[in-house]
Amino acid sequence: MPRVVVDVMLKPEILDPQGQAVANALPSLGVDDVASVRIGRRIELEFTGEPDLDRVRELADKLLANPVIEDFTVRLAGADESAVPS
Amino acid sequence: MPRVVVDVMLKPEILDPQGQAVANALPSLGVDDVASVRIGRRIELEFTGEPDLDRVRELADKLLANPVIEDFTVRLAGADESAVPS
Repeated sequence: MPRVVVDVMLKPEILDPQGQAVANALPSLGVDDVASVRIGRRIELEFTGEPDLDRVRELADKLLANPVIEDFTVRLAGADESAVPS
Repeated sequence: MPRVVVDVMLKPEILDPQGQAVANALPSLGVDDVASVRIGRRIELEFTGEPDLDRVRELADKLLANPVIEDFTVRLAGADESAVPS
């Protein structure tokens, strides 16, 4: 079944406390070349038929994201995109 | 600065109550061709220098994901990947 991925991220100007917490933890793991960390949501929608990306954008705008503080992107998931164990 | 995207999703066999809640809400918005919804985390790491993806995988394994219940993928963010307002 075709899958659509909606990535929702806080707008750049919005403070990201979760990302900040991860960024602060990195030096203790010996990672000191990370300038910033941003954390958002990845939403995978599996469709029974051919998905209409415009309708998914509308859906993202109404239900999946808060357009006041978040940006989102919508795309068809490619075969390589599924989160396979790496 | 180069950005790496780590996508963390629950393993397929793990129940996803968040995704279930969204899936249940869709018919009320007139969307009835969605078979399933899975919700995970998208983590964007901005590097000061050239990122080493193997090291990022190690980092994801230790800090960003819970390997017992989650799968993750690591990739360099392409120009089109940034969450721009759509």
